Amino acid sequence: MKNHTRLDPDILRVGHLLADAARRETLKYFRTTDLSTDNKVADGYDPVTVADRAAERAMLDILAQERPDDAVLGEEYGAVSGTSGLTWVLDPIDGTRGFVSGTPTWGVLIAVGDADGPFFGIIDQPYIGERFIGGPGLATVTGPTGTHKLQTRKSRDLSEATVFTTFPEVGTKAEGAAFAQVSQKARLTRYGTDCYAYALVAAGQVDLVIEASLQAYDLQAPIAVVQAAGGIVTDWQGGPAHNGGRALAAANPEIHAQALEMLRHCAP
Amino acid sequence: MKNHTRLDPDILRVGHLLADAARRETLKYFRTTDLSTDNKVADGYDPVTVADRAAERAMLDILAQERPDDAVLGEEYGAVSGTSGLTWVLDPIDGTRGFVSGTPTWGVLIAVGDADGPFFGIIDQPYIGERFIGGPGLATVTGPTGTHKLQTRKSRDLSEATVFTTFPEVGTKAEGAAFAQVSQKARLTRYGTDCYAYALVAAGQVDLVIEASLQAYDLQAPIAVVQAAGGIVTDWQGGPAHNGGRALAAANPEIHAQALEMLRHCAP
Repeated sequence: MKNHTRLDPDILRVGHLLADAARRETLKYFRTTDLSTDNKVADGYDPVTVADRAAERAMLDILAQERPDDAVLGEEYGAVSGTSGLTWVLDPIDGTRGFVSGTPTWGVLIAVGDADGPFFGIIDQPYIGERFIGGPGLATVTGPTGTHKLQTRKSRDLSEATVFTTFPEVGTKAEGAAFAQVSQKARLTRYGTDCYAYALVAAGQVDLVIEASLQAYDLQAPIAVVQAAGGIVTDWQGGPAHNGGRALAAANPEIHAQALEMLRHCAP
Repeated sequence: MKNHTRLDPDILRVGHLLADAARRETLKYFRTTDLSTDNKVADGYDPVTVADRAAERAMLDILAQERPDDAVLGEEYGAVSGTSGLTWVLDPIDGTRGFVSGTPTWGVLIAVGDADGPFFGIIDQPYIGERFIGGPGLATVTGPTGTHKLQTRKSRDLSEATVFTTFPEVGTKAEGAAFAQVSQKARLTRYGTDCYAYALVAAGQVDLVIEASLQAYDLQAPIAVVQAAGGIVTDWQGGPAHNGGRALAAANPEIHAQALEMLRHCAP
């Protein structure tokens, strides 16, 4: 994270503008009964809602106005090129399946990065009114009980740890088996949280999040928030995860090492 | 639900008092880092937190003052006898595993019933500040976006349905297999929600919740809320569920019948 010992205040300002806009747009549709969804994939269920598209469009309009020199990578509308060397990475609704089921654990993901990866991230939960922010010198959550510092958990053995993933299959058969190895040694495994699980690592409530088959826009904001709070996010080999794929988010280096030892041999 | 075509306003008043008190007590502890938990069972992890006990104690004090003739059945402190024929059934934190992980889908459960079962229920989510209420002539949720009427979903085929349960194993091997039959035919299966899943059935977002090994206090408030919103809750034979055990909550009679057909043959 060279050159990012302090966060440019304009990035924070625009980050809030984007999150506010996405909050407004997504809440117009959340828990409405006539929510229209259509399938992105022929096999399985990957709903794209009008809310996704409206929220990303609103964020793109703000970036065009406020940060015209930055590049953008969005889930729904793809890439906008830039000249500043900075890229805003947007996922208007991470956890669309949760969104269409009414759960409050989907989120708006906003990250800013350069060639080294993301250095600023926001995980916003519009319904709760909760915003997790991480960047150089900045790690806070603002929500129903006020603003609190984010700080990951101290080291504990895997047998005392809480592990999250979104769905029990995780990914391929090999990925599911590798996850199960960790899960069986952990004290508690929970499912169904999408990006909210990473926010809980940053908030010191969860030790590990393990997922597979992710996109860059699923991971960049979580990486920035978890790392700003003292945690670590890598792929299952211990390398960078900001291009997507498999993710291992950990509260501290010790629990990261314990989980990595079981995941690193997973077939590609 | 004979004799309960209209709700006694004093029950609603005291219900809110209890939920307010439990909200205060649980939020003192939610997401604190020094949360003390101890194991109820030798095998597995069933944390009882100080928050559970403080919240139930606060509710018991209010009931002793405001409704001295009613009986009480609580998760933590057991039974208080009464003379009115009415019983308050309390679960101060349904979803303690979610609570100790920081997720916002645990809830305070408050029900009032007579010999026929529960006729009034509250599912309260303190962190979100969201309260689902169901009783005779009453089915509302009040939360971050105001107060809305609760109404379950209209009939749709199981292949279009969303099914929730708390953890993928569900219960015994036979119970897990029965659940998998329904899940494999459904469009979307989600995990990890505890009582919040029943609230989402009442809110018209989810078609089915299927669980096993429940206690009476886990189910009575959800039954009252789901039924007030137009849904159905039974056991896996189609009989009453308010004494606990296996639960099948459904948005409407048609989807209930589809799921029941697959669950009813499950070995006891």
